Amino acid sequence: MSKSINRQILLASRPKGMPEASNFALKESVLSKPKVGEVLIKTLYLSVDPYMRGRMNDRPSYISPFQLNQPITGGVVGKVVESNDEKFKTESYVYGFLDWADYSIAKGQDLQQLDSSIAPLTTTLGVLGMPGMTAYFGLLDIGLPKKGETIVISGAAGAVGSLVGQIAKIKGCRVVGIAGSDDKVNYLTKDLGFDLAVNYKQTDYFEKLKKGCPNGVDIYFDNVGGEITDHVITLINKNSRVIICGQISMYNLEKPDIGPRNFWIFLTRSATLKGFLVFDYQARFPEGIRQMAQWIKEGRIKYRETIVEGLENAPKAFIGLFKGENVGKQLVKVAEE
Amino acid sequence: MSKSINRQILLASRPKGMPEASNFALKESVLSKPKVGEVLIKTLYLSVDPYMRGRMNDRPSYISPFQLNQPITGGVVGKVVESNDEKFKTESYVYGFLDWADYSIAKGQDLQQLDSSIAPLTTTLGVLGMPGMTAYFGLLDIGLPKKGETIVISGAAGAVGSLVGQIAKIKGCRVVGIAGSDDKVNYLTKDLGFDLAVNYKQTDYFEKLKKGCPNGVDIYFDNVGGEITDHVITLINKNSRVIICGQISMYNLEKPDIGPRNFWIFLTRSATLKGFLVFDYQARFPEGIRQMAQWIKEGRIKYRETIVEGLENAPKAFIGLFKGENVGKQLVKVAEE
Repeated sequence: MSKSINRQILLASRPKGMPEASNFALKESVLSKPKVGEVLIKTLYLSVDPYMRGRMNDRPSYISPFQLNQPITGGVVGKVVESNDEKFKTESYVYGFLDWADYSIAKGQDLQQLDSSIAPLTTTLGVLGMPGMTAYFGLLDIGLPKKGETIVISGAAGAVGSLVGQIAKIKGCRVVGIAGSDDKVNYLTKDLGFDLAVNYKQTDYFEKLKKGCPNGVDIYFDNVGGEITDHVITLINKNSRVIICGQISMYNLEKPDIGPRNFWIFLTRSATLKGFLVFDYQARFPEGIRQMAQWIKEGRIKYRETIVEGLENAPKAFIGLFKGENVGKQLVKVAEE
Repeated sequence: MSKSINRQILLASRPKGMPEASNFALKESVLSKPKVGEVLIKTLYLSVDPYMRGRMNDRPSYISPFQLNQPITGGVVGKVVESNDEKFKTESYVYGFLDWADYSIAKGQDLQQLDSSIAPLTTTLGVLGMPGMTAYFGLLDIGLPKKGETIVISGAAGAVGSLVGQIAKIKGCRVVGIAGSDDKVNYLTKDLGFDLAVNYKQTDYFEKLKKGCPNGVDIYFDNVGGEITDHVITLINKNSRVIICGQISMYNLEKPDIGPRNFWIFLTRSATLKGFLVFDYQARFPEGIRQMAQWIKEGRIKYRETIVEGLENAPKAFIGLFKGENVGKQLVKVAEE
């Protein structure tokens, strides 16, 4: 490698409310050498995901907080530049939980080999990666979709929601999506085959949704939370399943939010609500990846990526998630393959 | 029978908020004769249950509303006075969903024979009836208690809660109850073997509860809802189960209640919430009754009944449920066995 300067994006300060550019800092440093068992990786793509907002707070949760003045870390696809682990060849592709940086050093044992001839590299961060597995296991394992049932999906045009709807169609459900723009609504119904989609920024969206679910809601796949969820919960059927996959509307709140108490609805309708973390399904990822790849091959699952160029734009891409700027999976392209 | 006048308690008006005596009316009428296939029953005991509050509203739910100027109906244990169904002998005991009245007429097919030599008649309305089955199936089927886990129960001194705690002890759980008086707290810990009980009317109850659950909460069996539930939810563990059995704190509210939005807690802890109705388990009642009877025989399950005398006092006993006047199962004794 010719370059010995590395750029990293650090957490400069913890956001209050919506993250801002000033919460991040770009730092240049001299690149160190990989030690025995380590691999030097050039970042090609990095993933920005809503769950990362939680890691910016200094609060214990299911995943540890980012440290101040340390690099942000997340899913990365990269190319091996120098390897001190014989299992990883130079020029080969890898996936890992790595720094937001031009280059990272990782132990070989923390990396996963990728074969770019099987699927595009970016799919490792999307449809065949964490968001894809979230959609697959969340819907099938918790949602238990049955033919003829009605499913409502919030955040339906996002990386997870857009896949949930298509899997639900494969399973024979009536699929209704909630999204934040008319373009997204069109994408869902025209490109992805949703039966109905509504734009929650229109005041009458819930009336439309209600009319579009004449038999009520059997499954609610929630990525959003807040008022949208308050509304949908009023429509759930006897024995319905509510999957709490994300609550993006709440991640940037500065104080706890209040809303209608609705556990009584679950009582009178014998309904189930379950939160889940895709990490708990890691052992079953091979099953999910195999099935999703098969459906893509058959043309039954489509996916879209929104790609921002340049490491320095990663914070902007991340912040954009909370403004609904992405359709499908939001990625940052850091270098050419 | 010597008497041809029957007294019935009717729904005189629908309550706004807490039910009042004026929502009920006592009506006398001449008793009619049972037709072919019908049985005339003298009420011995009637059951008052919190779920009945929902039936006083004119709103569709999982069970139809009571009709104005018609008798309140519920679980009744009675004695056959006159029978036009050969399966039911005069002087035998029966259980049915019957009027709040001195006498009822019912079809034989809607009645269940009782053998008073096997268990006291009142147990049919409590530990071996609906509340007992609610505790048994709610805890075991949804709560899935495992040895060493911590369970918190709200409404712990009630007909259901007091049994849930004892079953959980049999299953090896650490059992923590929430109740509304020091007497109830003593009953739970001294008589029923709860590991801890707290009086929610004391301002520091939640501090005590938290200290008493050093390993968090694996199961929350909720009969109450509202603020108590808001508090307990903050303590739930990874993979915990929340059973929504009742929400008695909300049944008398005149407008929808608000509280902290907490679905995100279920998300970060992969927790499950499930509402349930015991009626859905009817086919499995024999299993539950057999097991509960066995545990009573072994001295492992105790139960208490709070008995009010006189049909005319049924409304008062019912209203008392919402004021926490009962310990264990609240019954109304209408006539001597």
